[in-house]
Amino acid sequence: MGKILFTGACIMAMDEDRPDYFTGDLLIEGGRIAAVSEEVGAIERSRAERVIEGRGLLLMPGLVNTHGHAAMTLLRGYADDLPLQEWLEDKIWLVEENLTGDDVYWGTLLAIAEMLRGGTTTFTDMYFFMERAAEAAAESKVRAVLSRGLIGLGDGAGKALREAADFHRQWHGAAGGRITVTYAPHAPYTCPPDFLRRVMEEADKRGCALQIHVAETASEVEDCKRQYGHTPVGHLHRLGLFERRVIAAHCVHLDEEDIAILAEKKVGVAHNPGSNLKLGSGIAPVARLLEAGVTVGLGTDGAASNNNLDLLEEMRLAALLAKGEAMEPTLIPAKQALQMATANGATLLGLEGVGRLKEGYKADLIALDLKAPHAAPLFDPLAHVVYAASAADVRYVLVEGDILVDGGALTKLDLERIIYECSRRAERLTGRSAERA
Amino acid sequence: MGKILFTGACIMAMDEDRPDYFTGDLLIEGGRIAAVSEEVGAIERSRAERVIEGRGLLLMPGLVNTHGHAAMTLLRGYADDLPLQEWLEDKIWLVEENLTGDDVYWGTLLAIAEMLRGGTTTFTDMYFFMERAAEAAAESKVRAVLSRGLIGLGDGAGKALREAADFHRQWHGAAGGRITVTYAPHAPYTCPPDFLRRVMEEADKRGCALQIHVAETASEVEDCKRQYGHTPVGHLHRLGLFERRVIAAHCVHLDEEDIAILAEKKVGVAHNPGSNLKLGSGIAPVARLLEAGVTVGLGTDGAASNNNLDLLEEMRLAALLAKGEAMEPTLIPAKQALQMATANGATLLGLEGVGRLKEGYKADLIALDLKAPHAAPLFDPLAHVVYAASAADVRYVLVEGDILVDGGALTKLDLERIIYECSRRAERLTGRSAERA
Repeated sequence: MGKILFTGACIMAMDEDRPDYFTGDLLIEGGRIAAVSEEVGAIERSRAERVIEGRGLLLMPGLVNTHGHAAMTLLRGYADDLPLQEWLEDKIWLVEENLTGDDVYWGTLLAIAEMLRGGTTTFTDMYFFMERAAEAAAESKVRAVLSRGLIGLGDGAGKALREAADFHRQWHGAAGGRITVTYAPHAPYTCPPDFLRRVMEEADKRGCALQIHVAETASEVEDCKRQYGHTPVGHLHRLGLFERRVIAAHCVHLDEEDIAILAEKKVGVAHNPGSNLKLGSGIAPVARLLEAGVTVGLGTDGAASNNNLDLLEEMRLAALLAKGEAMEPTLIPAKQALQMATANGATLLGLEGVGRLKEGYKADLIALDLKAPHAAPLFDPLAHVVYAASAADVRYVLVEGDILVDGGALTKLDLERIIYECSRRAERLTGRSAERA
Repeated sequence: MGKILFTGACIMAMDEDRPDYFTGDLLIEGGRIAAVSEEVGAIERSRAERVIEGRGLLLMPGLVNTHGHAAMTLLRGYADDLPLQEWLEDKIWLVEENLTGDDVYWGTLLAIAEMLRGGTTTFTDMYFFMERAAEAAAESKVRAVLSRGLIGLGDGAGKALREAADFHRQWHGAAGGRITVTYAPHAPYTCPPDFLRRVMEEADKRGCALQIHVAETASEVEDCKRQYGHTPVGHLHRLGLFERRVIAAHCVHLDEEDIAILAEKKVGVAHNPGSNLKLGSGIAPVARLLEAGVTVGLGTDGAASNNNLDLLEEMRLAALLAKGEAMEPTLIPAKQALQMATANGATLLGLEGVGRLKEGYKADLIALDLKAPHAAPLFDPLAHVVYAASAADVRYVLVEGDILVDGGALTKLDLERIIYECSRRAERLTGRSAERA
């Protein structure tokens, strides 16, 4: 957490008080952004312990991944192109039964390594053995919003709730405040109303936000209507779930009333375009959500249904899909897509001082290389990031002033060891070879 | 064009006579694939002048880009998120009026540099000043299918046809056969029937295939029906255009009869999912085309509407979009997506001995790095390439045995100079700054 100066970089601050982009300086001190200048050389070099020459770099807020299951990296590419129920029941759930805490630790590290290299500075996770996921997050110095996934069916429901309470006590606000804990009832179809009421009670006791999968597939919506007489959004609304801060993942199949409820109750939506396409779930009505005033963030979902954790790719997909589906090229322009991937994601997760390059904000930021062929000519850095850039362009990643990617390389993580561990574990879990050549 | 041996690589040969992937050796001699072995070490190292250790590399056929306008790299990011007509008429066409041959030369080199680095070994181009584009292609040793774009409205129609004939005479089969020339009437709405008849006559005289934009937007289809009483496909069919080899780009808005015509007449379709989304054109019915037996290849279109020339990205988009739009995750599985991007693209372009790693085939091949975090675990290399890999993973690119990308770096092109030239030219053409930081 030293004093670091970026000088002469193209800065895309996502700060309403500044131009969309400018060439200038940015100083980091004590994990926060201490100064931003629209003039190169205005911040004295002597104030910094390290000066990074910004020429050819685009500085912007770190990307915020608002939905995922990090350790599912272990099942990346294990089962693709299958009908949804076969994928879930015959493949994913069967393997997950044999997951260990160590598996989750290593799988989460792999996810973090990939996300950091691709410019993600905050990730959101809903899974099992979360104390091990939290260890991985703490060690790697990334920002994380973590939840013990809660299923309200079967014998494990009470145990899961106790584990969630323990997890909250142990990890909420840990790692210097980088880790926050939320409650994560999995979905309306796996959490009956009584269980959801218990979850709300537990979450409220601790002042916790909720994460939940909502209206991911058309059949889920039909089932919910049959069982409860309402859409998933309507059902959760009637249960009072939206009376607290809620991150609703997916929201692919919504009617007008659902959208009005999400807007009125200020429910945040985590949009996962890649996963929704790949699993054949559909295309979420993001432009309509945004128009209704809903805060929308972006998520990768787990690597078993994506199959990478590349938030730049999700951002591009979100912008392109909205235009293509509605046949309206003006929908989700570059700036709005960037807001979803940064400041709006942070808002939705309840993170203060994250998602903009602004004095006093936490120094969660990334620098992209502008020297690649796909970055030329560079008329508009915003359009460049949304429509042309690649995760591989990311050169520097800082979280709260710690340099976690330096010149493209991970500083805190031993990638070779992580890949070795994950490949062995993936093989044990599936009985299939997980390394080629 | 030396003798090159890849040994111990994971080989995805796209050859029906072999497994989908295997660890083995591949020898290149005289620009062709001389030997493929499913056993590591079976090909003697002494047969090669250069041995590339394949451990951690995935060898596959080079990607084939079946539609684009290469020099439009000069307008990358110049005008985004605009209504289609405003984008085209007020931005793109206005600037294109001032294009020079030198602009096209440098813009084409930039496109080639980007495409090569991302694993594209063949590209297709339809533009102006094509002799300069051909120079760029010849110098850079890439494989190219080039056409002088033909507009049949206005005074320039006759001149354009004469230029097309000159271009064919000078460049068809040039650069050691790497360059082939086709005729490219722009679209039914810019080429009246009489002009299309002249183009067919000219093309037939030379035994040339045709490239044409077809049914890219809904309004084009409506206009065509109003003007000619038929859909664009129906109209072209009635004009007899499909009696020769035709590459129909886009084909977004098709009815069942259109699809039947394309299948029956063996018209190849160049699918450009990214551009179609970004311009708000819509989503092409690719799964239905494939089911009807139409040969579908993939294209990037120009960088002004994409905004990169990343064919891996287009392949992923094609597979994901088909699944998501139909809500059917089994559509366009990984292998089919790969076929579109390689062998099917080559078939559609009329290229023989391209698109597979098979003895006697031309050595157009690429090697991807498998050591990135998003490549672990690696259960299935096919799924990896389609759903997780990135253009930045490309380490080696060979066209007809020439190494054009070596360890990730371009061997024949001076990227810095190209970017410098293109940025200056982009600034001159638009009056806007095209470099930041």
